Amino acid sequence: MSTSDLQTFTGWAATAPNAPLQAYTYDPGPLGAEDVEVAVEFCGICHSDQSMIDNEWGRTRYPFIPGHEVVGTVVRVGDQVRGLKLGQRVGIGWNKGSCMHCASCMGGSHQLCRTVQPTIIGGNGGFADRLRAHWAWAIPIPAAIDPSLAGPLFCAGSTVFSPLVELDIKPTDRVGVVGIGGLGHLALKFLNAWGCEVTAFTSSPSKQEEAKRLGAHNAVASTDAAAMKAIAGTLDFLLVTASADLDWNSLMATLRGRGRLHFVGIVPSAIAVHVFSLIPAQKAISGSPVGSPSNMAKMLEFCARHQIVPQVEMFPMSQVNEAIDHLRAGKARYRVVLDASK
Amino acid sequence: MSTSDLQTFTGWAATAPNAPLQAYTYDPGPLGAEDVEVAVEFCGICHSDQSMIDNEWGRTRYPFIPGHEVVGTVVRVGDQVRGLKLGQRVGIGWNKGSCMHCASCMGGSHQLCRTVQPTIIGGNGGFADRLRAHWAWAIPIPAAIDPSLAGPLFCAGSTVFSPLVELDIKPTDRVGVVGIGGLGHLALKFLNAWGCEVTAFTSSPSKQEEAKRLGAHNAVASTDAAAMKAIAGTLDFLLVTASADLDWNSLMATLRGRGRLHFVGIVPSAIAVHVFSLIPAQKAISGSPVGSPSNMAKMLEFCARHQIVPQVEMFPMSQVNEAIDHLRAGKARYRVVLDASK
Repeated sequence: MSTSDLQTFTGWAATAPNAPLQAYTYDPGPLGAEDVEVAVEFCGICHSDQSMIDNEWGRTRYPFIPGHEVVGTVVRVGDQVRGLKLGQRVGIGWNKGSCMHCASCMGGSHQLCRTVQPTIIGGNGGFADRLRAHWAWAIPIPAAIDPSLAGPLFCAGSTVFSPLVELDIKPTDRVGVVGIGGLGHLALKFLNAWGCEVTAFTSSPSKQEEAKRLGAHNAVASTDAAAMKAIAGTLDFLLVTASADLDWNSLMATLRGRGRLHFVGIVPSAIAVHVFSLIPAQKAISGSPVGSPSNMAKMLEFCARHQIVPQVEMFPMSQVNEAIDHLRAGKARYRVVLDASK
Repeated sequence: MSTSDLQTFTGWAATAPNAPLQAYTYDPGPLGAEDVEVAVEFCGICHSDQSMIDNEWGRTRYPFIPGHEVVGTVVRVGDQVRGLKLGQRVGIGWNKGSCMHCASCMGGSHQLCRTVQPTIIGGNGGFADRLRAHWAWAIPIPAAIDPSLAGPLFCAGSTVFSPLVELDIKPTDRVGVVGIGGLGHLALKFLNAWGCEVTAFTSSPSKQEEAKRLGAHNAVASTDAAAMKAIAGTLDFLLVTASADLDWNSLMATLRGRGRLHFVGIVPSAIAVHVFSLIPAQKAISGSPVGSPSNMAKMLEFCARHQIVPQVEMFPMSQVNEAIDHLRAGKARYRVVLDASK
């Protein structure tokens, strides 16, 4: 079958919370003029896929195919596509489209477009043979990066890389990473290569030595009161990749003047902060989503130069349910990637 | 009596919460080698004076003399004083000293020194004939600024000016000011001269027209749901000068991508924010204290160039209790200044 005849995409769909994915075929409709169609080679599994499978955010419409850390090759291009050609290897992450003309898009901050289109909200994702995206959101992958390892860079990686550029993190900064998982382990690698002094915060003692291997200079158990006291008032930037409610006041206290507590993990409960934690030492609390297309391109260049790749475990796409069970059991070290050829 | 013979300072002291101030004399001890002694000409009354009089923060030790918006002339200098001379007119604000050698002080951020010495916490302030301060915190007042009006610049003014420099507010930004009082009215003047589009948020309809006269281009009642909806997603920076618990989620919604809700007012309760209010549009919540000495010098230059002065009501120092009652009644428009010569 030639690509021009392809009428259906086939993948693995969620049909109910907590249920195994099932084989699923859908008609993607005509190819948009600005869209590319990608033959999926690899797709990472992100915590957000699990949240969407389980309808944790109340935004899931079943059946739907998860997957938003896609690596593949361009097999079709719409008439208006720019900068991409057939056969080119690209990655598609959390977002697959934006309006291209609002102030955010025109300013290079496509991730802040009010109509940005997440890959797996209201559409099907990359646990499939094919995926489409607007050309701007299909990011060329440098040849120096192993495509089987690149997938997690497009969501986990971009989520922790974007704030380093956006918030002007400096190599002279002392930074902390809270939560050493899919996002956090990449944050350690990025920040080490960024030149910073890096401290990993993890509640798991077994991950402390691992964190140092990944790039942390120090590792601290956030439940260790003495260690938290010793580090108080020393950090410039604290990146929260965890998705759990933690003792934010205790973490705020690790920051020095002008320090910032920055969230990229979806923490369940509201964060309560008194102005006395903000005003005297001029501190901030903030958050950010995945990066813009240009930011992702910068990340890939940085990864190629510093030989940074995610640490992954490979599963055949046909064993997607075993892979998800592995993730649900908290066993993923540090990211699971599905191989679409198997 | 020559200044070298002066052994006691005389002022007006609080002796209990909510009680009238009483005449009070104290021995200031020997003049520190790095300190200057200032003959007080004028002193503003700040909301923080009232908070300290009433022991709202649990940090008051009676009797104590309030006052930390002081304008006066240097009448004595210690042996190690730099950059100031006898007869020079200076201002002293919220802080009167810092260690001068920590990383913050050496980096020009003396306001973030861990041992920064607030003028009225643990010491006596400027509702008095004399006040001492470290030379670094006695800021020369340009001749172009009327000294009778300058006092409020050293706390109210610096508190709202400092973040404009520290947070790199741009003339192309759309900014909001929440609370139009002692701090807020100066924020409107500063931000108008800064070149920004300025929106005043006030719950008092009578203050909306007044806000426009002070420099706001727009005025919005934060309790007006339709007006709040109309302004949603439009502001870059929202400066909270109010000292009340407000609907922070509603105010956060006025910010556009990369917007920041910034607190300089002492809001009583913790602020609760969910990461979904921070992450998607890359927003921040932050706070800052008064400015550093160099920041205050920049502010005074800016005020002189743009003819910015606080709008004040003058009271004789001898009528300090009437002045405080006026403030307590919420009648101050917008700052009360005590004249020490009367």
